[in-house]
Amino acid sequence: MKALEKYENRAKKINSLLSIGLDPEYEKIPERFRALEFPQFEFNKFIIEETHGTAAAYKPNAAFYESRGQQGWRELEMTAVHLREHYPDIFTIFDAKRGDIGSTNEHYAKAIFDELGFDAVTLQPYLGAEALEPFLKRDDKVSVILCRTSNKGAGEFQDLTSGGKPLWQIVAQQVSKEWNIHGNCMLVVGATYPKELKAVRSIVGDMTVLVPGIGTQGGSVKEAVEGGINSKKMGLIVHSSKAIIFSNDPANEAKKLRDEINSYR
Amino acid sequence: MKALEKYENRAKKINSLLSIGLDPEYEKIPERFRALEFPQFEFNKFIIEETHGTAAAYKPNAAFYESRGQQGWRELEMTAVHLREHYPDIFTIFDAKRGDIGSTNEHYAKAIFDELGFDAVTLQPYLGAEALEPFLKRDDKVSVILCRTSNKGAGEFQDLTSGGKPLWQIVAQQVSKEWNIHGNCMLVVGATYPKELKAVRSIVGDMTVLVPGIGTQGGSVKEAVEGGINSKKMGLIVHSSKAIIFSNDPANEAKKLRDEINSYR
Repeated sequence: MKALEKYENRAKKINSLLSIGLDPEYEKIPERFRALEFPQFEFNKFIIEETHGTAAAYKPNAAFYESRGQQGWRELEMTAVHLREHYPDIFTIFDAKRGDIGSTNEHYAKAIFDELGFDAVTLQPYLGAEALEPFLKRDDKVSVILCRTSNKGAGEFQDLTSGGKPLWQIVAQQVSKEWNIHGNCMLVVGATYPKELKAVRSIVGDMTVLVPGIGTQGGSVKEAVEGGINSKKMGLIVHSSKAIIFSNDPANEAKKLRDEINSYR
Repeated sequence: MKALEKYENRAKKINSLLSIGLDPEYEKIPERFRALEFPQFEFNKFIIEETHGTAAAYKPNAAFYESRGQQGWRELEMTAVHLREHYPDIFTIFDAKRGDIGSTNEHYAKAIFDELGFDAVTLQPYLGAEALEPFLKRDDKVSVILCRTSNKGAGEFQDLTSGGKPLWQIVAQQVSKEWNIHGNCMLVVGATYPKELKAVRSIVGDMTVLVPGIGTQGGSVKEAVEGGINSKKMGLIVHSSKAIIFSNDPANEAKKLRDEINSYR
């Protein structure tokens, strides 16, 4: 089964477009986990236990593991194995925002797709498709390309216009028309930019868009879903992390958000 | 001492602008190392032993370690410690090409500057200065921003023109005029694009440029040095990896390249 179908099957099966961040920022996880041998892994296991019924996808961000060195990387590996073994139908995205020259990307692709075994990875567009080929050629996996990022200063380069179009639109065009020959590409567009999300939807047809930036970053769920949903009421992965995982009741927060998303579909 | 001065002091002391890659691609390192407990670290130690007299900088690329999981990350840490303890005056660049939103970059900066202890890191410009602030604010460290990458397909987005200027020029302008308030920025320009390198030099004044792409990627040392050197016969880090570390005589290859670089200064 291709990874994109894995996401769609999962989303349909549990009627959820929700992705949950596995971002166990060491300083923020409850003290009872910090006392354990594998604090980040145990915290992730707890979050997964609480939320797996509503999670179409899980998305660990590399930075929170790398900041704990080899120990963090080990707990990332343990998390990946845990997901594969116990929740094989949940889509997994490694949020690593990688991007190097082709010969180097071969090694990143091996690390992320084959060693860690994630279904998808987030990627930087700056070096172009030729450099990203080691990811793009993997028709069994998904490449999620940054298009319009959720941060406040995203426009510095992304809003530069060329031929009358901003860079983020050109990225959306290139990825949907040129890069997606295996049907294995997605785009990242922040919920903090609802107009841009709507414009991206009109450019890319039914292609799936990963939407971070709701919750603590302030994006509106309503605008994200109404502007981003595709013609099949699908094509969105709505992502939340801190607002769920560091809440007092992750299971309930996840359900509330899933329901809120569905209410606008 | 600021990290930029560290590079300049080192380069002057040994009269070398050479950076050497610590990219111990597991399949390519000699068999005698693969039999050891820490093959990548032992290979790096050997390369450092052979070449430290000519190395102004060492630049490990993250991909070659990540593809070996926690073991690779451990050997990366061991390499970083080894360099700090035994060669504290050699400039170290972690070639990780990172770039996320600000709150996440805090964790990458911690991982790379504080835990691993590198002097510099390579970064993606796509999210803009606001996102990269956790790196840029570190005036004790160096942020090396991708400008014109060495790969064949680099132009897909980098050559898009806005207001008559290609994106790579706009990145060079922004970084040199706006981002570099602490004097801690460098740019990456591939030796495979000598005209672009010359143009970047004319935009950025005496700012230091990291130039990969000679050796196996085919860039000319002569054109890189003549086009890229600054008004003080400095301002360049000329990088080579495979052609040195996988040669039969790394010490001699490094010396030859150092001398070739100096012959064009």
